[in-house]
Amino acid sequence: MLNQENVKLGKVRSSIRELFEYGKKRKAEIGEENVFDFSLGNPNVPAPEEVKTALADIIAHTDPIALHGYTSATGAYEVRKVISDYINSRFDAGLDPDCIYMTCGAAASLTITLNALVNTGDEVIVFAPYFPEYKVFSSHAGAKLIAVESLDGTFQIDFGKLEAALSSKTKAVIINSPNNPSGVVYTKAAVEKLCRLLKEYSLKYGNPIYLISDEPYRELVYDGAEVPFIMNYYEESIVCYSYSKSLSLAGERIGYIAVNAKMPDSAEVYAGICGAGRALGFVCAPSLFQRLIQRVYDKTSDISIYKANRDLLCSALTEYGFTVVKPDGAFYLFVKAPKGDGAAFAGRAKKYELLLVDGKDFGCAGYVRISFCVATEMIKKSLSAFKALAESYNL
Amino acid sequence: MLNQENVKLGKVRSSIRELFEYGKKRKAEIGEENVFDFSLGNPNVPAPEEVKTALADIIAHTDPIALHGYTSATGAYEVRKVISDYINSRFDAGLDPDCIYMTCGAAASLTITLNALVNTGDEVIVFAPYFPEYKVFSSHAGAKLIAVESLDGTFQIDFGKLEAALSSKTKAVIINSPNNPSGVVYTKAAVEKLCRLLKEYSLKYGNPIYLISDEPYRELVYDGAEVPFIMNYYEESIVCYSYSKSLSLAGERIGYIAVNAKMPDSAEVYAGICGAGRALGFVCAPSLFQRLIQRVYDKTSDISIYKANRDLLCSALTEYGFTVVKPDGAFYLFVKAPKGDGAAFAGRAKKYELLLVDGKDFGCAGYVRISFCVATEMIKKSLSAFKALAESYNL
Repeated sequence: MLNQENVKLGKVRSSIRELFEYGKKRKAEIGEENVFDFSLGNPNVPAPEEVKTALADIIAHTDPIALHGYTSATGAYEVRKVISDYINSRFDAGLDPDCIYMTCGAAASLTITLNALVNTGDEVIVFAPYFPEYKVFSSHAGAKLIAVESLDGTFQIDFGKLEAALSSKTKAVIINSPNNPSGVVYTKAAVEKLCRLLKEYSLKYGNPIYLISDEPYRELVYDGAEVPFIMNYYEESIVCYSYSKSLSLAGERIGYIAVNAKMPDSAEVYAGICGAGRALGFVCAPSLFQRLIQRVYDKTSDISIYKANRDLLCSALTEYGFTVVKPDGAFYLFVKAPKGDGAAFAGRAKKYELLLVDGKDFGCAGYVRISFCVATEMIKKSLSAFKALAESYNL
Repeated sequence: MLNQENVKLGKVRSSIRELFEYGKKRKAEIGEENVFDFSLGNPNVPAPEEVKTALADIIAHTDPIALHGYTSATGAYEVRKVISDYINSRFDAGLDPDCIYMTCGAAASLTITLNALVNTGDEVIVFAPYFPEYKVFSSHAGAKLIAVESLDGTFQIDFGKLEAALSSKTKAVIINSPNNPSGVVYTKAAVEKLCRLLKEYSLKYGNPIYLISDEPYRELVYDGAEVPFIMNYYEESIVCYSYSKSLSLAGERIGYIAVNAKMPDSAEVYAGICGAGRALGFVCAPSLFQRLIQRVYDKTSDISIYKANRDLLCSALTEYGFTVVKPDGAFYLFVKAPKGDGAAFAGRAKKYELLLVDGKDFGCAGYVRISFCVATEMIKKSLSAFKALAESYNL
């Protein structure tokens, strides 16, 4: 018998992928320009010009043996140095290069971190709505995922519900701010309160509860929103970072894990990360992209395009009568289903050629997700369809 | 408590890495040119010029959104098509693109395959000497590694010992031909006998025993040695391939898994691979390097340099009295320790500034490994040290 958990996982397409495939079929039927595909979180803004220039320069002028050979499993020292220096310059975090572990993107950052921390039977807490793969990653590491509902209307943390979920089995809490799929950014007050609570419960149970901050959307914030840097609030914290969205390099798989230098057992946690990276088969992060990050660590794609898309969609959908929490970050809009059923809403939207993702997979069945990392022109063209959809509900 | 297995794994450096670090220190003390470092398997022959040209061209002329965006989790279809066509043209294997799953190199190919196949308590058989990470990968997937000694003098399969090791718990057998660390290539007769035996035991126990062929060294063979293509001999077979050594791209992490189309449950196995890839956090293989492989799938680095190194070392060491099996492939020489103790031999070699890896980690304590993916000049300079080492044993 094969490993049935993985066979099942390989067969069940996520509803996002399912919808994306439907979209491809539908576009072939009625023309690409007539389908409004808001299903995927693949950046539509190109990588900044500096990426192209740096890649060309590195390939032209670096000895290929050094360039394409193995780096240390933790990543090339010079790359980790640039990253820790940059983090320190932004957040005064006191990191050194040996706090950084280069990875193949955010998913790898998370699986490696979870496999370093988790023993079978542990629990990992997330806040709904949450990125569906958290469940897959936690389960493979041997942990049970506990989803805690967020406050209705704001998607900030519901501390009452969090306290009810914390237990002696809680090994870690994952936060994702800016959030996929709601775009919410946790306020400083929320982060402070979260950290006080985790400290209190760590002491109560006599075991540290680790705080994992999944940050692929850190740089994608609007109107000057600030994303508190978790290490400044909580010792037992780990940042899982990725350049997939900020530099539009989602397919290249490059990111890092940063372990808080102030964590009492940081050396043990870092060793666990090194061991988990080995056991999962990562060897090292792609060396060319490590070298690229060394040069463009402080650049981003043109975020203003996402902001324009957000503003356009938010004001139109609000005007049509939909209930929307205006996102401070990321490139997603989480919209309340008019009759409380996300699946039915997404189903009806399809009739207007609008491809929206049912919120159920994110742990919120009464919502749908709209990815606005798409051409602004498509959004403009889609507005009459959204309007008709609203009218069909008599909004 | 953290995951102690992974913490331990992260702390215990492999003896190869340990020796490499010693070498760095020693070079700083007495000068790089006076240390003969044969510790690592990092290619010293540059990637072929076609790699540089193709990378530059792809970066200059491809839309960055398409180039750097997510590919399908299994890999871009066009890339998988080129690979399956190429395999078919060489081995008449009848593969289609949906038999291929692109990975971040051989380690990822192996961990994903093992996690697709293995249930806790299964056994995975390997032949000593074997690549030490097989144990780490099998253990993480929940399997017990069973090492079967090879025939003394040739390192071909000892079928008597293999039969003694096969059991109802055997889920898979891993072969690695050309082999790291011995360089041995399995003969056609050996492969045929192995496959007959696995078929017989699969029927006996009523469960397929999967044959995993780990092939990072397939293209590195000398004097026209032929590496039988496993799918032509055994239905339940999976090839784990990597471009790390053949194209000198070890740090870039690009390879694939090929599932035999003739396998009765190939769709289930492929689904398990997709699921395992997701659960381990791989998302997709680096997209730029997928596009590179699409162009240079049939190229290799200049293998003749490795052959020259092999010939030089083999004839010198044999002349000095060492016992060596001349390798038909890969870039390693597995040398018998004169008094049967690899650790003592490697220790004494250090006094002559020769850095050789103790065979214990490969499951053969009476040997040392010499990696000859080094400058030919260094080998020439090292020969007097090898001679003095031989004389110290009165060989």
